[in-house]
Amino acid sequence: MRAISYVDNMEVWKDSFSFSIPIKIRFSETDMFGHVNNVSPFIYFEQARIEFLKSVGLFRTEATEDTGIPVVADLQCDYLQQMYFNEDLSMFVKANHVGNTSIDIHYMGVVDGNIAITGRGRLVYVHPKTGRPVPISEEIKKALMTT
Amino acid sequence: MRAISYVDNMEVWKDSFSFSIPIKIRFSETDMFGHVNNVSPFIYFEQARIEFLKSVGLFRTEATEDTGIPVVADLQCDYLQQMYFNEDLSMFVKANHVGNTSIDIHYMGVVDGNIAITGRGRLVYVHPKTGRPVPISEEIKKALMTT
Amino acid sequence: MRAISYVDNMEVWKDSFSFSIPIKIRFSETDMFGHVNNVSPFIYFEQARIEFLKSVGLFRTEATEDTGIPVVADLQCDYLQQMYFNEDLSMFVKANHVGNTSIDIHYMGVVDGNIAITGRGRLVYVHPKTGRPVPISEEIKKALMTT
Amino acid sequence: MRAISYVDNMEVWKDSFSFSIPIKIRFSETDMFGHVNNVSPFIYFEQARIEFLKSVGLFRTEATEDTGIPVVADLQCDYLQQMYFNEDLSMFVKANHVGNTSIDIHYMGVVDGNIAITGRGRLVYVHPKTGRPVPISEEIKKALMTT
Repeated sequence: MRAISYVDNMEVWKDSFSFSIPIKIRFSETDMFGHVNNVSPFIYFEQARIEFLKSVGLFRTEATEDTGIPVVADLQCDYLQQMYFNEDLSMFVKANHVGNTSIDIHYMGVVDGNIAITGRGRLVYVHPKTGRPVPISEEIKKALMTT
Repeated sequence: MRAISYVDNMEVWKDSFSFSIPIKIRFSETDMFGHVNNVSPFIYFEQARIEFLKSVGLFRTEATEDTGIPVVADLQCDYLQQMYFNEDLSMFVKANHVGNTSIDIHYMGVVDGNIAITGRGRLVYVHPKTGRPVPISEEIKKALMTT
Repeated sequence: MRAISYVDNMEVWKDSFSFSIPIKIRFSETDMFGHVNNVSPFIYFEQARIEFLKSVGLFRTEATEDTGIPVVADLQCDYLQQMYFNEDLSMFVKANHVGNTSIDIHYMGVVDGNIAITGRGRLVYVHPKTGRPVPISEEIKKALMTT
Repeated sequence: MRAISYVDNMEVWKDSFSFSIPIKIRFSETDMFGHVNNVSPFIYFEQARIEFLKSVGLFRTEATEDTGIPVVADLQCDYLQQMYFNEDLSMFVKANHVGNTSIDIHYMGVVDGNIAITGRGRLVYVHPKTGRPVPISEEIKKALMTT
């Protein structure tokens, strides 16, 4: 398995996830090469990230000045194994690191026990009007690191 | 060519369009059957419809009480010919009929001189808060029917 | 409720469905108007249609000369009620009519007990190489009409 | 401007691109937060990458044993500035490094003279049947580095 910059030890990393959602791969998410299009994993990342954030009370579509709105600062995906229509993907998510106003989130997509995709990306909480970063509360930090 | 409920005479209908936009078919819009996925034409319809409405001043993303926001009431597509990655699609749009608060819009997608897809759908203008229909001005009606 | 061309009696029609799949509406399926984009229902239709066809053995990604491949001839959607991010959609599907080489499929999307979208579309089975229609077996016809 | 791991000097980097394609941002590519959904840039990357590869003869949908098919190994995007519906995006692409069987590709998306998104990702050429890497010819390497 090739080196991935944000994974030190794949076995340790793999075991560090606990939260996941099931995803059934749709026909419209494939392309003419016969497999899942390389854009589709980012749809899965977003869906899993939002479910994860909701589970700790950090996703609200109505932004407030206190909580801020989540803005994606960067995203990356490593494609380790082709995925196909109708496969059952377990999309794992965890907070790798929680800073004062941002979260480094890791992603792992597993099909039939094999890691098909990995990823990471930073999420920043900003004030809906000023765009300035909003601090993440200690309570939420704790919830994020234990989910 | 098979019968299409909203087209009386195909030759006459074909000649009734004047507005069109060019669309280059993207790789991500294909599926594992090797051609354009059946969802993709509705992306093209939306893009062409908005450009058409903008050309007569009927598309504004900031809704006002006077103009209302456009809401799609129904949409349909007939797939006459497969489309493929990288093809150049000419997406034609016209207002087939303009009522007091709604527009019946027709669509025709042409590749290499052949009609690949046809479609239609009704657009309603509603008040952003109450959801009630907002009348279309005589001026706009006129612009719609002559574009 | 407005008239829909393919629905005679809404109450009777509503009760005629038995097959459905659950769909969780994704964030990426919304648009800047705050609700589900009008393209997204066709993604849901496709997913539900394929699950329905699989349930009667009529969906195979490996086309054979005997079974043909399913090709969408036309599709339409009526938008009765706005749908929003995170809502739980029950996507119902049924074969409304089964012809010799094609199926007329009906769709009904329900959120919180209310019909949000309805639709229909014809599916044709064609020979993967010649493109000619392939007959649907009596056995499959029976299965389609009783699911 | 924040640090981006694959960019040493932003001014030098910005000037190193020459190939670009124009992209008009579609309504369906926005989300309920009012801006372009974070999945959409990867659609733009793919479209720009394919046009870039076609310009040097490295994109063929019919895979051969000699050329191999292009497979995305990884992809990443940094979101520097929100993008909105209807904006004109200039999507730049370049080969940052060409190895024996893979290419490191860089992406830069510019709106109104400002960099809105940056990105990179590795593309590998593999044998369509065996999946083994296929060497990139010296001629193609040269074309890639001078486009």
